[in-house]
Amino acid sequence: MLEQRFLGFINDNRLIGPADRVLLAVSGGLDSVVMAEVFFRTGQSFALAHVNFGLRGVESDADAHFVQNIAARYGVPFHLTRFDTASVATERGISIQMAARDLRYDWFAQLIQAHGYASVATAHHQNDVLETLLLNLTRGTGLAGLHGIAARQGSVIRPLLFATRDELKDYADTHQVTFREDQSNADDTYARNRIRHHVVPVLAELNPGLWQTFPRTIGRLRAAEVLMQAELDRSWQTITETEGDRTLLRTNALLALPEPAFRLGEWLKPFGFTLDQAGQMLDALSRPPGQVFQSATHRVTHERSGLLLTHLTPLDWPEIRLDVWPDAPIDVAGRFWLTIETMPRPIDFKLPADPNIACLDADRLSFPLLLRPWQLGDRFQPLGLQGHKLVSDLLNDLKLSRAEREGTLLLLSGGQIAWVIGRRISHHVRITPQTRRVARLVWVAQ
Amino acid sequence: MLEQRFLGFINDNRLIGPADRVLLAVSGGLDSVVMAEVFFRTGQSFALAHVNFGLRGVESDADAHFVQNIAARYGVPFHLTRFDTASVATERGISIQMAARDLRYDWFAQLIQAHGYASVATAHHQNDVLETLLLNLTRGTGLAGLHGIAARQGSVIRPLLFATRDELKDYADTHQVTFREDQSNADDTYARNRIRHHVVPVLAELNPGLWQTFPRTIGRLRAAEVLMQAELDRSWQTITETEGDRTLLRTNALLALPEPAFRLGEWLKPFGFTLDQAGQMLDALSRPPGQVFQSATHRVTHERSGLLLTHLTPLDWPEIRLDVWPDAPIDVAGRFWLTIETMPRPIDFKLPADPNIACLDADRLSFPLLLRPWQLGDRFQPLGLQGHKLVSDLLNDLKLSRAEREGTLLLLSGGQIAWVIGRRISHHVRITPQTRRVARLVWVAQ
Repeated sequence: MLEQRFLGFINDNRLIGPADRVLLAVSGGLDSVVMAEVFFRTGQSFALAHVNFGLRGVESDADAHFVQNIAARYGVPFHLTRFDTASVATERGISIQMAARDLRYDWFAQLIQAHGYASVATAHHQNDVLETLLLNLTRGTGLAGLHGIAARQGSVIRPLLFATRDELKDYADTHQVTFREDQSNADDTYARNRIRHHVVPVLAELNPGLWQTFPRTIGRLRAAEVLMQAELDRSWQTITETEGDRTLLRTNALLALPEPAFRLGEWLKPFGFTLDQAGQMLDALSRPPGQVFQSATHRVTHERSGLLLTHLTPLDWPEIRLDVWPDAPIDVAGRFWLTIETMPRPIDFKLPADPNIACLDADRLSFPLLLRPWQLGDRFQPLGLQGHKLVSDLLNDLKLSRAEREGTLLLLSGGQIAWVIGRRISHHVRITPQTRRVARLVWVAQ
Repeated sequence: MLEQRFLGFINDNRLIGPADRVLLAVSGGLDSVVMAEVFFRTGQSFALAHVNFGLRGVESDADAHFVQNIAARYGVPFHLTRFDTASVATERGISIQMAARDLRYDWFAQLIQAHGYASVATAHHQNDVLETLLLNLTRGTGLAGLHGIAARQGSVIRPLLFATRDELKDYADTHQVTFREDQSNADDTYARNRIRHHVVPVLAELNPGLWQTFPRTIGRLRAAEVLMQAELDRSWQTITETEGDRTLLRTNALLALPEPAFRLGEWLKPFGFTLDQAGQMLDALSRPPGQVFQSATHRVTHERSGLLLTHLTPLDWPEIRLDVWPDAPIDVAGRFWLTIETMPRPIDFKLPADPNIACLDADRLSFPLLLRPWQLGDRFQPLGLQGHKLVSDLLNDLKLSRAEREGTLLLLSGGQIAWVIGRRISHHVRITPQTRRVARLVWVAQ
C-alpha cells in the first residue's frame, strides 16, 4: 500500500526516471531507514550516503556503522563522510544546524557529480511539512514559510513527502525495519518535539481527516505563492528601469499599487534589505531626497526620480583578463594568488575538498578568462543543480558575513561564470567521465 | 496603555471618525464587555446591542439583562433582540452558528440604518485571529483562511484587533470589569477551546515574542493574498471573452499559465464550483469537447474554443415588467404573489422583520420595475454595506440550498437592483429620515 503510493508519487512528480540511480541520504532514523527499505522493496537503483557530523561522539559513530550495515545488507554502495561541523559553524559565524546543512548538501552535490547519481533523496514527509509550518508560524513568517517542502528542488528529491510519520512507523513495524533515534535537527529538537507531541495531536484529534486535507492546503498555499510571485515579477518590470547595474524604481508608480511596502520588501529581500528597511524607504518618500539605505551588498538611494538600487563596490578589485593559460601565479590586487594548472584527467580523479581549489574541464573553458567582483544580476548553474541561480541568492543562502559576500570574485570563461571563487563551480564546466584535461585552479591569500 | 493603543489603532485604521456614533455588539463576555469599558473611558460616542439567540434558556436571558445593566450604567442606548435561531437554522438548512451570524448581522444593519450609527464594532482580538487560523489550518483552507480578520469590513469594525486576550483580561482586572462566560461561538466551542488551551500556549512558550511577530505574519499573508488576487484578476481578464452572460475561457491560454488548476478553482469558486470540479475540467481538456459541469447556479461546458461559463436558468420565470404602480397582486409564474403598496412614511416607521417584506423609498424607485432571475455578474450595494457585492457572493455567503439560490429573483428599478427578493434590499433605496413615501413590497407563495 505504502509502496504503491510511493510508486504513484514518484511517477506523478517525475522524481525518478527508469534509468536513474538515486543517492539516499540516510541518518539511521526511522524516516530515512524506511525510505531505504521502500527503495529496496520496489526495486529501485540506489546507494546510501551518511554524514557523520561528529556532534554526538560515540553515538555518531554508531549511527554511521548502523547505516553502513544497511547498505551491506541491500548490497548497494555506501558513502560516508565526517565533518567537523562545530568548527565550520564557528568559522563561518553560522549556527551548527546551518553548517551541517551546507556541508551535507555540498557533499551530496559532489557525490552526484563524481558517481553519476540522478538525484539525492531525503526522507521528508507530511509531518515534517506541518511541523515546519507551525514552527515558522510561531517564529513569524511570510507565505514562503507556510507552503512546505517541494517534492523536487534541483537535484534533491523527497519521495516520501506523501506519507505521514505514522504510516512510516507502520511500515517499519510490518517489515521489521529497525532504526536509531534521529538527531539530525539538533538545534530544532526541543521546539520541534513540542510541536510534534503537543500541538499536532490536538489538530489531528479535531480533524481526523487532517492528513487528507493538509496536502491540499499546502498545494493551495504553494500555488498562491506562485501567483503572488508572478504579480511581484510583473509589477517590478512595469515600474523599474534598469541600466547596467543601476535599477531605478519609479516611486509614484509603486505608491499607486496595492501593498507597496510589502512589494518593496519582497523585491529588495534578494538584495539583502529587510522588511523594516523597505518600510523606512517608503517613509522617506515624504521627505526631501538624499536618504541612503544599505544592505550587505546593495545601496538604495532616495533620488528625485525614485529609489535607485545599485551594487556596493566595496573593494577596488581590478578586472583581470587572461588570454592564454598563465604560467605563473596571478597577483590579485596584492591580496591573493590565483594559480592555474592544466593536466590530463587523472584516472582516480577526486573532487577537491577545499572550496578554494576548483577542478574544471579545461576544454570547456574558453578565453579570455575574466576575474571580476560579482554584480547584481549575475547568475549561473551551480554544480549539481538543474536550474540557474542568482549569485546574490547563492551568497545569501550561504549566510556569509557581509565582508565575505562583498569580497567574492568570479572567474568567467567566454562571458559565463565558471567559478564563484571559494563557493561553487558552474555545472557546465564540471569534470565528467568525458573530460580529458583538467584545469586546476588554486586561490590562496598572500 | 491599552487605551492609548486603542486610540492609535482606530486612528491608524480610520475606524472611527470624530462625529461617529458606534454600535457595540456586546455578548456579555470578557472581550465585548472590555470593549464597552474602553469606549466609555476614552470618551467615544456609542450604544450597545445584544442578541438573545434563545439557545441557552434562562442563561441567555441573564446575559441580556447583564448587558442591559452595563448600558444603563454608561447611560447609553441599549438595543435588544431575540431570535429563534434553532428554527431559522432548520428552516434554511444551515448550522445554528451560521444562522446566528446571519441574523445578528442583518439586525445590526437594520439598527445602523434606523439610528444612524456609523458602524458596528465587534470585540475580535489577536487570539481570535490565531485561533481561527489554526482552526482553518486544521480543517483545510487556502490563503484566505489564514490571513485573519480585517480591522474593517464594510460597516463592521474590530477596534480591539490589536490586543491579545491576556491584555483584555489584565484591563478587566485593573478596572474591575465583570463579565459573563462567553458562549457566542456555540458550534465552535469545543474545537476552539482545545486550540486556545492546548495549542496556543505551546506556541507562546516556544516564542515568547509570539504576539509581537504574529501581527506581522498576518500582515504579510494578507498582502500576499492581495497580490495573488491581483494576478488572478489580471490573468482572468487576459484569457476570457465575455458577451452578455456568457464567458469563454480560452484554455490554451490558461494551460500556458503556471498553476492552471488553482487559477481555475479560484476563478470559478464565486460561481459555486469546487476545486475538485476545476481539476476535472482540466482533465476533460484532453478528451473530446462536450462535457458539462454544473454548480448550483452555473454551467461550464467544454467547447472546442474553450470552457464556456453560463448561468443556469433553472426555472422558466418570465421577466415581468411594471410601468406603473400595480393596483393588484402580481401573479409570478403561478407560484408567488408580489404585492406593492405605497404609503406616506409612518412616523414610527420600523423595518420589517420578515425578509419577504421590503420597505423602500418610493421616490427613489423609477419605472419600469423589472422582475427577473439573478444573473452572473449582477451586483448591488446591500443595505448597510459600504461597497458593492456580487449577488452570487451574497447568495453563497447566505449558504442557501441550491434550489433557494437558483430560485432567487431580483426586483430592478431603472436597471439597478432594488431588492434581492427575500434576501436583501439595496442601500440606495432604503428608508432614510428624508423618505416621504414608502413602497411596501410583500412576497408570498401561492
